[in-house]
Amino acid sequence: MRKEPKKLDDLFHDTLKDIYFAEKKILTALPKMAKAAQSQDLRTAFEKHRTETEGQVERLEQVFELIGKKAQGKTCDAIVGLVEEGQEIMKEYKGSPAIDAGLLAGAQAVEHYEISRYGTLKTWADELGMNDAVKLLDATLQEEKKTDATLTRIAETVVNQEAE
Amino acid sequence: MRKEPKKLDDLFHDTLKDIYFAEKKILTALPKMAKAAQSQDLRTAFEKHRTETEGQVERLEQVFELIGKKAQGKTCDAIVGLVEEGQEIMKEYKGSPAIDAGLLAGAQAVEHYEISRYGTLKTWADELGMNDAVKLLDATLQEEKKTDATLTRIAETVVNQEAE
Repeated sequence: MRKEPKKLDDLFHDTLKDIYFAEKKILTALPKMAKAAQSQDLRTAFEKHRTETEGQVERLEQVFELIGKKAQGKTCDAIVGLVEEGQEIMKEYKGSPAIDAGLLAGAQAVEHYEISRYGTLKTWADELGMNDAVKLLDATLQEEKKTDATLTRIAETVVNQEAE
Repeated sequence: MRKEPKKLDDLFHDTLKDIYFAEKKILTALPKMAKAAQSQDLRTAFEKHRTETEGQVERLEQVFELIGKKAQGKTCDAIVGLVEEGQEIMKEYKGSPAIDAGLLAGAQAVEHYEISRYGTLKTWADELGMNDAVKLLDATLQEEKKTDATLTRIAETVVNQEAE
């Protein structure tokens, strides 16, 4: 029996598993980043984003339900690499005035990864006519963009002054 | 002798090596992605971006020169992961109508990684008072944003129609 070629709905499901794995990984990384941050603003931003991420995981579980699949992650090499880079910075810049700048850079790289993934998933959900999924994915996409803007604001003010 | 704690200029240099490695990796990945693309629009976009990337590598070399350091890459786990994910998609979706959607998703994840890195480097160059570096980094940042917008346009039109 010949295997059916994979289609857009398969790609949607595969990418959903990828970002589900990524969000779970981020959930474990954020408390470490908050602990390593020197500025109170940055620590608060990481703690707030941890709570948001829990809600984003729940939204993903709702999308899995909408497509009738079990919520399940699939190793995402990109996020593994991003988190490893962040850990390297925490180690190399421990006690340095530049640590917050480094943490911010790592966090913004993660945010941009998520922004690209949720943007892609939203476009595909729309193409596939899944309106409820579009709404859930867009809610998270807007949150990620807002978090990125908050991190940019912190990067431009508090942190880099410390690092000089 | 006690080692001096690392500062923002060290972080700038480390991150410059990271994105230099990433750009070189992207240079080798783009021709494979162009070859795998089904739509002419997408193939052209990848080919155009390859030429642009060569210019971006040259700009980075100018920034290395500005800080008096040798242009040198440092393994960037994030881009290694992103490129591996792209290769996996090329393999799994070979011959599938969804291949272009998958290639686009991978390329946009890479673009967002670069957008975050160049945004960070530009902010730091500004903090460090390196105006010439700011200009070079901003020129590339604008190109990356434009490429991302082009890919979004292609994703919303040609490709997803193929994949349905």
